[in-house]
Amino acid sequence: MIGTKRTIIVIGGSAAGPKVAARARRLDQAAEIIIIQKEPDLSMASCGYPYYIGGLVIDRKQLLSTGGGTLRDSAYFRNTKGIIAMVDTEVTAINREKRSLTYNNLLTNKTDTLQYDRLIIATGSLASIPEVPGKSLTGITTLKSMRDVDFLRSVKDEGKIKRAVVIGGGSVGLETCEALHLANINVVLIEAAPQIIPFLDWQLAKIVENHVMTKIENVITNSFVSEFKGENDQLTAVLLSDGTRIPCDLCVISVGIKPNSTLARSAGLLIGPTGGIAVDQYMQTSDPNIYAAGDCTEQHHLITGEATHAPLGDRANLEGRVAGENAVKGNKVSFPGTIHSRICKIFDYAVGSTGISETRALENSETGLATVLVAGTDKPGYMKGCSLISKMIIDHRSKKIVGFQCIGLGDVSKQLAQASIAVQSAMSLNDIASLDLPYAPPYSAPIDNFIVCAHVLQNKLSGQLKGISAEEVMNKLKKNERSYFLDVRDLPEYENIRLDIGETLIPLGLLRSRLDELPQEKNGEIVVYCKNGPRSYEAALFLESQGWNNIKVMEGGIAAWPYTRGSGFCMK
Amino acid sequence: MIGTKRTIIVIGGSAAGPKVAARARRLDQAAEIIIIQKEPDLSMASCGYPYYIGGLVIDRKQLLSTGGGTLRDSAYFRNTKGIIAMVDTEVTAINREKRSLTYNNLLTNKTDTLQYDRLIIATGSLASIPEVPGKSLTGITTLKSMRDVDFLRSVKDEGKIKRAVVIGGGSVGLETCEALHLANINVVLIEAAPQIIPFLDWQLAKIVENHVMTKIENVITNSFVSEFKGENDQLTAVLLSDGTRIPCDLCVISVGIKPNSTLARSAGLLIGPTGGIAVDQYMQTSDPNIYAAGDCTEQHHLITGEATHAPLGDRANLEGRVAGENAVKGNKVSFPGTIHSRICKIFDYAVGSTGISETRALENSETGLATVLVAGTDKPGYMKGCSLISKMIIDHRSKKIVGFQCIGLGDVSKQLAQASIAVQSAMSLNDIASLDLPYAPPYSAPIDNFIVCAHVLQNKLSGQLKGISAEEVMNKLKKNERSYFLDVRDLPEYENIRLDIGETLIPLGLLRSRLDELPQEKNGEIVVYCKNGPRSYEAALFLESQGWNNIKVMEGGIAAWPYTRGSGFCMK
Repeated sequence: MIGTKRTIIVIGGSAAGPKVAARARRLDQAAEIIIIQKEPDLSMASCGYPYYIGGLVIDRKQLLSTGGGTLRDSAYFRNTKGIIAMVDTEVTAINREKRSLTYNNLLTNKTDTLQYDRLIIATGSLASIPEVPGKSLTGITTLKSMRDVDFLRSVKDEGKIKRAVVIGGGSVGLETCEALHLANINVVLIEAAPQIIPFLDWQLAKIVENHVMTKIENVITNSFVSEFKGENDQLTAVLLSDGTRIPCDLCVISVGIKPNSTLARSAGLLIGPTGGIAVDQYMQTSDPNIYAAGDCTEQHHLITGEATHAPLGDRANLEGRVAGENAVKGNKVSFPGTIHSRICKIFDYAVGSTGISETRALENSETGLATVLVAGTDKPGYMKGCSLISKMIIDHRSKKIVGFQCIGLGDVSKQLAQASIAVQSAMSLNDIASLDLPYAPPYSAPIDNFIVCAHVLQNKLSGQLKGISAEEVMNKLKKNERSYFLDVRDLPEYENIRLDIGETLIPLGLLRSRLDELPQEKNGEIVVYCKNGPRSYEAALFLESQGWNNIKVMEGGIAAWPYTRGSGFCMK
Repeated sequence: MIGTKRTIIVIGGSAAGPKVAARARRLDQAAEIIIIQKEPDLSMASCGYPYYIGGLVIDRKQLLSTGGGTLRDSAYFRNTKGIIAMVDTEVTAINREKRSLTYNNLLTNKTDTLQYDRLIIATGSLASIPEVPGKSLTGITTLKSMRDVDFLRSVKDEGKIKRAVVIGGGSVGLETCEALHLANINVVLIEAAPQIIPFLDWQLAKIVENHVMTKIENVITNSFVSEFKGENDQLTAVLLSDGTRIPCDLCVISVGIKPNSTLARSAGLLIGPTGGIAVDQYMQTSDPNIYAAGDCTEQHHLITGEATHAPLGDRANLEGRVAGENAVKGNKVSFPGTIHSRICKIFDYAVGSTGISETRALENSETGLATVLVAGTDKPGYMKGCSLISKMIIDHRSKKIVGFQCIGLGDVSKQLAQASIAVQSAMSLNDIASLDLPYAPPYSAPIDNFIVCAHVLQNKLSGQLKGISAEEVMNKLKKNERSYFLDVRDLPEYENIRLDIGETLIPLGLLRSRLDELPQEKNGEIVVYCKNGPRSYEAALFLESQGWNNIKVMEGGIAAWPYTRGSGFCMK
């Protein structure tokens, strides 16, 4: 193509598309670069939608503008980047043999064709809609497009709607709950699975659910929607499969998104097992003239090696940069894949994970994981540190970290970012145990919770600490298995909040002088716990030294106890 | 020692010492474990001192208590950990042959000896004091001990002192400036070096200095104190070597700290080139029965391979854990060393670095580094993102990251933590360029500034972007070298703040239509800049495509321009 002004066409103008086009332009000033966008808007900050709906972002234009306040419209792309951006325009077919595509202007309904030298597909994703009677009633929406956003913001601004149902307890569903809550709407959240937040393991998800329960009307798990009821074409209620009827005027469906790969499929491009466009590490599709990037593609999972769908804005940008460069320069740069790093704000909690979860690993019959749950704070107590709970997952054989989850009242994105990089560089438990991290009291604890996880997991693996999960404790209680439960916190803490599972309180500081109060049968199981973990660990070691030989420490202590609903057991 | 109750003695009760003792206890419930502490307090949160002095931490007890509010005194150590903590007690000599030590009770002045099986030295560090006439006047202090802290807090509480001088512009000096500022005291900061904050390269340090200048009376660099002047034994002024006299009633000296290794040296233990106790990776000294941890030791620098002194609380804890385990179990675990990760709060800025700086590398005549300076925000603009400026330093040959610096108005500890882990796992520029980090608008930008650094550095290394530093631009101006300076921001931005270096404003969006206004000599140098960098990069690429062949992009743009003092050029 040297000496010829080539044409690079990008289908899609949200996250990946504009990044592809910008990168291509930076590397080739002569090319004709065209973005074809079905929507009327360009380069929308879609991850920011919930914050506009809830009113935290005041002006719609902010979602569509540069940091400097310039609207990213067609004029902006033309004037600042020399890129033609055709909006309200849908590509209806790709003719790979002729390297052409057919498009339709949705406003004029005129159809035309364009030739390309390189085509990049960035058609994004589509919201899934359950096939349920009444799904077309007015008042039912997804949160996917600016049109959805405009509708939901108008709900807030008009202030008429007072009852809503959100279907789906993933990130978007929970962000929507918060946005609607901010709009003074009573919200019920319905989730088909036994837990909300599928990327967390059960215990952490349950703690978040307890918190959400203090904010909205109700969270109902294990429930399917069977029908939408309406009057005069307007939604009036949601019916669940168990017959429950939830009156509401608004329903936001967020049961997942799927790659929008229809156009690619019609063009005969290879589609992967997840339904996303199959691309290699160069973001090249099965047609060497066609690349793809963003939510319409599927990714390589760097830990499992499997194809996966990781629809997130940061990844779309990184993929777009790679696709844009390779489309211009040939396959020079690679995008290695994903480890599903993610975070979201759920009311007062920050919630995220990276790598694989224990649940997901067990589903896939993978074995040989070791895990630990550790509660603590992000900063020292005297700096008003916020509570957080982390879970670290390692490969038992290699001792390398493969997953990490964290929830907290502060910004746990640091802990998650640390873990993301550790997972991507396959750090071992020993590497993590002695990490040199930036420490000062306004920003961090002397030993960051991420490192503490490695320390406690080392202790577990060496047999120094025998852990037991809250779930195992609850199973014992349900089966009436007799264990001796020992709370070693101080009396004021106990008076403030306690498990009430038949426990005995002996503060750690008094344990040495009150050993006679313990069951003297040394083989009997004693489950010991405190607020976060350290005191119960010290108590267990001391009791073992005194001959008790069946002591277990409840991981995460009271802070991570997931059973009692309400604010009592939320992190404070 | 099996079958015998061994005695483990720890000298020092601040950060490393208690950690050593606690870890040893957890691994050996039978041992007699004794902490001997010269100070009256134990386990002091010394990194938190400035926040108590300034009043952010209200109660002195908070610095000395557990998260649950229990005072970490001798009773606490005895009752909860079974550790004997002797305070107000100074170890005066170690007899290595007899494995004994002599100590002196500072309250009773009684002397006695103790036998040890294992000894761990954690004597911390001492504040350096310049040998200047008048240094013993009342009103001159360091910020090192709780006694210093109590004095400085009384200064705040009494509210009489109105003028202070702080000597030394490192972390502690700057934290002290802020604490005294919060106590309504006019502060002048004196720094002997040409810049404050020695761990930052000049440009970033200068930007922080500009910010500090807006908060305190004055910052004077390149200046030594020659004399302290007083009346009736009370400080009244500080004299600088150039004759300047600064009236003041208080002077806080923070010109650095040195390892407190006197006792170890007297005992004949090997002392390293930094003056710290030499230890191996097991934290073992030259005597196999003696370990050491914390500020009194020197560390192995993981990048340079040299001995270094990295006195920080997090490292003291990690080292203490290793020393405590090895003292009990033999040399089982290692502490690999340090990369000098650090962060501190300087008024509204968070400021930190990890790995090696460009300055330090040049001093050591190391070559082959490549660097980049990138300005941006920590979150999207619509989420009220805070400005930050990062500098990434890589080894040119291996393309691996060796250093990172960041300053910002938000919490840049995340960016620094990311970089710390990347440095410790020797990540390459390509690895960083496609990192999968947790992204959501409340917590991060779609492409984190750390990743953006890698992208821009890739562009520099490929020749795609030719950078120029603000310092190089200033040198041109000083030498009257004729360059054409092109500001490509929008008019309102220019009207709000501009460099006034003879620049021409042509907003990027108008550049394509106003090319005729540029010098038509295509070989002439054009330096282009914008607020942060992206627009000037795009402008440069476009101009190159139009035949100009000597275009340079000023890295970090206006945001990182270090020359104008006052709030105008501080990050906003």
